[in-house]
Amino acid sequence: MKHIHSAKNPQIKQWKKLLTKKERDKTGTFLVEGFHLVEEALSGDQIIEIIISENKDMPPSWDYGSIPVTMVTDEIITELSDTEAPQGVLAVCRQQEGSPNISSGKRFLLVDAVQDPGNLGTMIRTADAAGIDAVLVGEGSVDIYNPKVLRSAQGSHFHLPIIRGNLFEWVDELKTAQIPVYGTALENAKEYTEIQRQGKSALIVGNEGSGVNKDLLDLTTANLYIPIFGKSESLNVAVATGILLYHLGNEK
Amino acid sequence: MKHIHSAKNPQIKQWKKLLTKKERDKTGTFLVEGFHLVEEALSGDQIIEIIISENKDMPPSWDYGSIPVTMVTDEIITELSDTEAPQGVLAVCRQQEGSPNISSGKRFLLVDAVQDPGNLGTMIRTADAAGIDAVLVGEGSVDIYNPKVLRSAQGSHFHLPIIRGNLFEWVDELKTAQIPVYGTALENAKEYTEIQRQGKSALIVGNEGSGVNKDLLDLTTANLYIPIFGKSESLNVAVATGILLYHLGNEK
Repeated sequence: MKHIHSAKNPQIKQWKKLLTKKERDKTGTFLVEGFHLVEEALSGDQIIEIIISENKDMPPSWDYGSIPVTMVTDEIITELSDTEAPQGVLAVCRQQEGSPNISSGKRFLLVDAVQDPGNLGTMIRTADAAGIDAVLVGEGSVDIYNPKVLRSAQGSHFHLPIIRGNLFEWVDELKTAQIPVYGTALENAKEYTEIQRQGKSALIVGNEGSGVNKDLLDLTTANLYIPIFGKSESLNVAVATGILLYHLGNEK
Repeated sequence: MKHIHSAKNPQIKQWKKLLTKKERDKTGTFLVEGFHLVEEALSGDQIIEIIISENKDMPPSWDYGSIPVTMVTDEIITELSDTEAPQGVLAVCRQQEGSPNISSGKRFLLVDAVQDPGNLGTMIRTADAAGIDAVLVGEGSVDIYNPKVLRSAQGSHFHLPIIRGNLFEWVDELKTAQIPVYGTALENAKEYTEIQRQGKSALIVGNEGSGVNKDLLDLTTANLYIPIFGKSESLNVAVATGILLYHLGNEK
């Protein structure tokens, strides 16, 4: 096992750069942090290497095979960590590549310009729970590999494809594949309960303030709204996503 | 209009103490921050006074009548603020008192030991949207007047009763009032879709890690679970609350 003591070590500097989106995209990698997320990474095929504090033990249940492990000081862990109380373990992982396989899937979530990392992470976790086949994240959203997105998603990045790209192209592909596409909107929209559960569907949810891009809404099969029975102006976007995905989705 | 320049002014020190739960409870008051929340406070009857930066203007649409307004420096605003980029306006408000009127209400949300302020605030906002009559918050939950709870709830504290107390007593009262009480649990529970929409219901949701207290679950009419179709271990508690409240609730 390699052991690095100096924060000035070039390897440490390289890892630290992964706290920026620019470096994550340049290298096609990202960092996950904490025992739960590293364990989730180990269950998939995206993990490249593990970084652990010299004061922590690798859990005996972890089957890390030939995955390289580097031991570092707690000071280095703090340098690499995005949290206030680091757990002492991180992993470098490969970003997912390629396009979603729309023709083989049934249910999709499309995310348009969601800004808050906690919201996006919770939406990814919710999509995983609801049995969605892939989450398609358009331009203008927070980075899917932002550390707070990863934490809020609680490992779901390793459970289903989370893919960045152009939502207009995907809506086209979904419609070509005969999958109904539902936008979310307040105007010219149907109450969501008017739509029955169905085998295949795609849902588009949008920005916390401005909602889904109007040009996208023009392309959908129908647009849906969730009624507000009280005095709040709207629902949180992750909560709305949960209500709609569970309503549209999975037949038993 | 009063104008305070010194952060050492005793009034400022007193307001600053409202950043602690202890002082909020001692005085029966709390602080809200930002133009949206102060405007929501103005629409209710809990507002006591307004504090505004000398570099900001009171929006002309605000009807603050005889509510005292104090002008302060930006340094003082920063002292009183819980956010990194304060908007420059705060209000001192009275906490809600008394018991929920269970016999006149139809739908209730009971919250058992939810720790994360963003979750609790989002749940309060969701309960408001779903047309819930009151949110009952048991011991062991984060303070309902925590600044992050207030921000996430986006003003719903001024729309419906949010009341702290003993959940066991409330479950008793709800059952006496013939209102079915549904817990949330993973074991000995029904899939939530087995329960039909109904006129009256109370829902208990619980701690992010351990769920609802087992002794409470023993007292319910039935306990419900939301199926997980994918690989995530669970749903975020605010998302689960949204799915269940919208399923149980409001008939058109």
